[in-house]
Amino acid sequence: MAHPGDVSALASLIDAGELRARDIVAFIGKTEGNGGVNDFTRGYFTQSLMALLARHTGEPAEALAARIPCVLSGGTEGVLSPHFVVFARHGDAPAQPVDTVNGSLAIGTAFTDPLPAEAVGRWAQVESVAAAVRAAMNDAGLTDPREIEFVQVKCPCITSARVQDAAARGQTVVTTDANRSMALSRAAGAFGIALALGELPASATDADLLADFAVACNRASVSSGVEVTCNEVIVLGNSTRWSGPLRIAHAPMRDALDLPAVGAALDRLGIAARPQVDDADRDRIAAVLVKCEPDRRGQIRGARHTMLDDTDINAQRHIRGAVGALVAGVMGDGRLFVSGGAEHQGPDGGGLVAVIAAGRA
Amino acid sequence: MAHPGDVSALASLIDAGELRARDIVAFIGKTEGNGGVNDFTRGYFTQSLMALLARHTGEPAEALAARIPCVLSGGTEGVLSPHFVVFARHGDAPAQPVDTVNGSLAIGTAFTDPLPAEAVGRWAQVESVAAAVRAAMNDAGLTDPREIEFVQVKCPCITSARVQDAAARGQTVVTTDANRSMALSRAAGAFGIALALGELPASATDADLLADFAVACNRASVSSGVEVTCNEVIVLGNSTRWSGPLRIAHAPMRDALDLPAVGAALDRLGIAARPQVDDADRDRIAAVLVKCEPDRRGQIRGARHTMLDDTDINAQRHIRGAVGALVAGVMGDGRLFVSGGAEHQGPDGGGLVAVIAAGRA
Amino acid sequence: MAHPGDVSALASLIDAGELRARDIVAFIGKTEGNGGVNDFTRGYFTQSLMALLARHTGEPAEALAARIPCVLSGGTEGVLSPHFVVFARHGDAPAQPVDTVNGSLAIGTAFTDPLPAEAVGRWAQVESVAAAVRAAMNDAGLTDPREIEFVQVKCPCITSARVQDAAARGQTVVTTDANRSMALSRAAGAFGIALALGELPASATDADLLADFAVACNRASVSSGVEVTCNEVIVLGNSTRWSGPLRIAHAPMRDALDLPAVGAALDRLGIAARPQVDDADRDRIAAVLVKCEPDRRGQIRGARHTMLDDTDINAQRHIRGAVGALVAGVMGDGRLFVSGGAEHQGPDGGGLVAVIAAGRA
Amino acid sequence: MAHPGDVSALASLIDAGELRARDIVAFIGKTEGNGGVNDFTRGYFTQSLMALLARHTGEPAEALAARIPCVLSGGTEGVLSPHFVVFARHGDAPAQPVDTVNGSLAIGTAFTDPLPAEAVGRWAQVESVAAAVRAAMNDAGLTDPREIEFVQVKCPCITSARVQDAAARGQTVVTTDANRSMALSRAAGAFGIALALGELPASATDADLLADFAVACNRASVSSGVEVTCNEVIVLGNSTRWSGPLRIAHAPMRDALDLPAVGAALDRLGIAARPQVDDADRDRIAAVLVKCEPDRRGQIRGARHTMLDDTDINAQRHIRGAVGALVAGVMGDGRLFVSGGAEHQGPDGGGLVAVIAAGRA
Repeated sequence: MAHPGDVSALASLIDAGELRARDIVAFIGKTEGNGGVNDFTRGYFTQSLMALLARHTGEPAEALAARIPCVLSGGTEGVLSPHFVVFARHGDAPAQPVDTVNGSLAIGTAFTDPLPAEAVGRWAQVESVAAAVRAAMNDAGLTDPREIEFVQVKCPCITSARVQDAAARGQTVVTTDANRSMALSRAAGAFGIALALGELPASATDADLLADFAVACNRASVSSGVEVTCNEVIVLGNSTRWSGPLRIAHAPMRDALDLPAVGAALDRLGIAARPQVDDADRDRIAAVLVKCEPDRRGQIRGARHTMLDDTDINAQRHIRGAVGALVAGVMGDGRLFVSGGAEHQGPDGGGLVAVIAAGRA
Repeated sequence: MAHPGDVSALASLIDAGELRARDIVAFIGKTEGNGGVNDFTRGYFTQSLMALLARHTGEPAEALAARIPCVLSGGTEGVLSPHFVVFARHGDAPAQPVDTVNGSLAIGTAFTDPLPAEAVGRWAQVESVAAAVRAAMNDAGLTDPREIEFVQVKCPCITSARVQDAAARGQTVVTTDANRSMALSRAAGAFGIALALGELPASATDADLLADFAVACNRASVSSGVEVTCNEVIVLGNSTRWSGPLRIAHAPMRDALDLPAVGAALDRLGIAARPQVDDADRDRIAAVLVKCEPDRRGQIRGARHTMLDDTDINAQRHIRGAVGALVAGVMGDGRLFVSGGAEHQGPDGGGLVAVIAAGRA
Repeated sequence: MAHPGDVSALASLIDAGELRARDIVAFIGKTEGNGGVNDFTRGYFTQSLMALLARHTGEPAEALAARIPCVLSGGTEGVLSPHFVVFARHGDAPAQPVDTVNGSLAIGTAFTDPLPAEAVGRWAQVESVAAAVRAAMNDAGLTDPREIEFVQVKCPCITSARVQDAAARGQTVVTTDANRSMALSRAAGAFGIALALGELPASATDADLLADFAVACNRASVSSGVEVTCNEVIVLGNSTRWSGPLRIAHAPMRDALDLPAVGAALDRLGIAARPQVDDADRDRIAAVLVKCEPDRRGQIRGARHTMLDDTDINAQRHIRGAVGALVAGVMGDGRLFVSGGAEHQGPDGGGLVAVIAAGRA
Repeated sequence: MAHPGDVSALASLIDAGELRARDIVAFIGKTEGNGGVNDFTRGYFTQSLMALLARHTGEPAEALAARIPCVLSGGTEGVLSPHFVVFARHGDAPAQPVDTVNGSLAIGTAFTDPLPAEAVGRWAQVESVAAAVRAAMNDAGLTDPREIEFVQVKCPCITSARVQDAAARGQTVVTTDANRSMALSRAAGAFGIALALGELPASATDADLLADFAVACNRASVSSGVEVTCNEVIVLGNSTRWSGPLRIAHAPMRDALDLPAVGAALDRLGIAARPQVDDADRDRIAAVLVKCEPDRRGQIRGARHTMLDDTDINAQRHIRGAVGALVAGVMGDGRLFVSGGAEHQGPDGGGLVAVIAAGRA
């Protein structure tokens, strides 16, 4: 990507016949905005992408946007590089497992109905996301939650316009603060994933959102934005009913300095980092997905950090640049999806890393 | 450090008798400003530090500032933590080497005469710095350039006031752009260090400053600021004429993703990182010094980075946050000195890392 | 001020005998930091200022800081210029009014006891500030609230350390969010001023803080910061029991475009702006004090503004730069005290302006 | 505009038949990005706009972009509001003047051939712009330079890719620094306008670009960006050969505090500001165009400003927010086109203001 309106690389692949536009089921990418409320690079890229697919599929851009999750994280701080990952699939699931040993990368997607503002950050959203995760698992033919390695959810938040709309219907919202609503929406998304994967403690309630950080899901990655009105879900796992060269593995990160976690995820794919992935293995890696956050307590391993008190640089920009570089150092590559806002997603103050890679030839 | 005026930790050490104020010969530290022209956390900290030493030594603060280099880099982006390293020494050099095998950490310092604006970024500065490096080597009793592992220089730059002062004396300056003068001053500092260490190609001239990046010194770390009017030099090496528990080792970094370089520097001190330094070894590490820069060509290993075109976040803040996190990931600790502006200091687009650590007990 | 540690202009005045250090009762100024939590230019300047006064008065710097309010606002955005205003007074109040017609500028100051964290943003703070305003009025010999034109209060906020301290005493705090505690503290300060001036509706309660913005005081200017633990108060008015060339006048600003308000305040001092103050009148102006805020509703006179959604530039920096320039345009001078965070201080979405000027010779 | 992709207001006008898409000849607007190299809100908006016009005119978006100048300035700092001005015209110029007294707003546009990188910031660009200004005057039927009130030019700059392209053709460029090339391109644009308007001193040469700021044109407004490869010109004036309710008037601003200049421009349109435009007159105002810059000498009317040394906020963002608010204060409206980078455009350290307004009914 030369800029956020540049979809020429994908256009070339389609023109060359290496990829069929109709096989595309999801996008995950990084654009070079600030990653905040006023980051319009995500909208610009989505508009450019859907216009390209519309030309190739004949479907209207709006219809494409309503069925293909396009999860973009703004902010390519430091060594991070603007890029996007295209997920495509074709063929039907076989009646019998094709690979009884390991399985291959499986992907399923789902969209919920529009979520009204009064549901955001409350249990109704938890259940809505859980249902969508189950629907995406079904779409992928994944039946066992243990097969799932990574669930990406994109959730709506509460804007002033939505507050007024809710009020007009006699409803109240959990908060009128847009930033807090985004955090609560991410929290509810993480709880919803945990619920669908059978990990959520039965005792968990609304009150635990952004409160009890011991409740966390190591396979949940959630972003929230003004641009969506429903929950969009991408489920990634490994399944013996899928074929293809790719597999996925994740590992939790206990804090922002958890370098060993990156090696742990690679290890599960048979890739060594001593300390960096070598060139041959690097070619096998198709995508790296990272979720992270600046530690709420203002310290990392006992040393004070200054991310949360910085009036000049948003804390999420700080942490993406830092954890992104740590992971990029292991990969030897800055083309990583690194997203901030990891409430209840991985260990408190840390997050998670997932890698998609091809098997050794 | 709780804030840039907080010198309480040093005050406690002095009060407890663990350190004598008069033994202090240099400071290197990170403060939590933006690291740019309008970063006043360096001045605030220096004022606080010199006031503390003045109380303990009886010397005026101005005199202390004129003999004790205080090299501060603003900007604790990402996982970096505000902190400072105090260099103290006592006793005289022995007539005979005390340790014929490895040597211990040696430190020497020197200040040049005030450098007039017309000399900044020109050969006169190269020679001034070279002479000061030799003086600092002499101060440390280091005679062989091969004993040197790291040379830190702080150089003046050209401000509007200094341009006018030079003009009044009938002199012209190399540039009237303050930022460019800082880069040229760093370049001349690096050339000066290389000259003193016998590394500078005989063919090098003024014209190579910021032009021929093949000319570089892997042991040079230079910063430039409005707050100094002369060149301040700290030379660090290992010498058999010094005793003490500490040693220093450096390694060049070929680019911002050069994770193996960090291991290489540690290796030379007998410290393993698999991939992270373990707790016992971490306790042995006294200081980590890093120099880095955003690659001028806009790419790292073929992937576009966006640091140089970012109007919101200064490129030096980006790269410090990134390379700082990569090194912190190996160390498991964010208390690192990480400084940007690595022109001719280490490989082009990369930089260098140096570690000071105690031997294993 | 050449930089935040530069107190040379004041030193010159004292050295020249134009001002006695012991007559100084307060400072109000602008420093060039970001004006946020991590703005250390305020602390740097205060340290420099108190060291200067300590040398001249013989009092310890700590004692000076505990009796001389030093209200600094960080952030000299746009045309604003770093500067500070020194308030000095001498002589005793006469038994009889000295000027039965208009009165002269009167100043009084007061400090409350340290305010525990559990009191911040609650009615206890409202009452504490009100008592201090009354004490400062008494210090100034001002008995009639109608004589007051401007009350500046500096309030503590809630930090993590103070939360823990409160918890240790079995107390709870109104919020653990530092930024919200600053807003609540400013709100309580404004209510306290209104209470002391007899303007607060009898029905007002804690629940109206940051909730009922119809409750507002047009003479209240409040800032909040981590650097204070008690409420510091400066009361400014006009009194016939004071003599001197200066008078003060304020006017509310209904929104960020309220240019006529500036003229209204000047008018009360006999200064015309057609549309700008002329050179002769400009020389009469001793200080301009402004309080402003980005409209919470996201619009100014029906046009959308983008200050509140900007991840790159803090909204307070935006509004200070804007309202500061609007007022500076009228004054023809950028040396204004402009402070953000105007909750309950002047009309909602606006703020207030006060001018101190000498009478025409 | 609700966001940079929102062209719904224009779509409504076209759908309602109040404006014919084919009559549109130019756009000037503000989008809410940072206004720097990495501001993609301009590209996003242009893409959205051209897609809308393509649907209505049947012309391809690329063809529209090549004939309709779309001058966007990013950055709606402070009270500025995202908005755009649509210029449309229809009918032919009459054989005889229609209004022998005052004339009406006239508009003409022109595009030059693509400007090679080696021409940027050199005399070839000055002449290219001058020729385009003459072509745009011709397009508008304006023959007398005195009829011109405002000329908007958008110029290309030098990017790394273009440097390499020039090198491949054996050509050298004036600078390889992208930001300096933008300033030089704006300077050459201003010189070109001055040349076409007969204002450029005969002695002016390349060497005066960014050097002799006494050479300036009070009717020139130039922006430079990576998104254009040729010079795009919009000429605005008043002509008795045009009819319509609108007229335009400009005034130079001598510095960033030149409030009287705004009144001067309004005066020429019969609009009073005492000090603010009243509601009836405000309804007459169709567009306000402002050019400004942070004074290079670091001072405004003798008081130091901090815009040029701020590492956190770009100087152009500072000055747009400041001068924008000063002008908005007079207008009572934040929907202004305010653009930074005023080299040779209006007085040094100042800039210019132009207003388009309807006559009184």
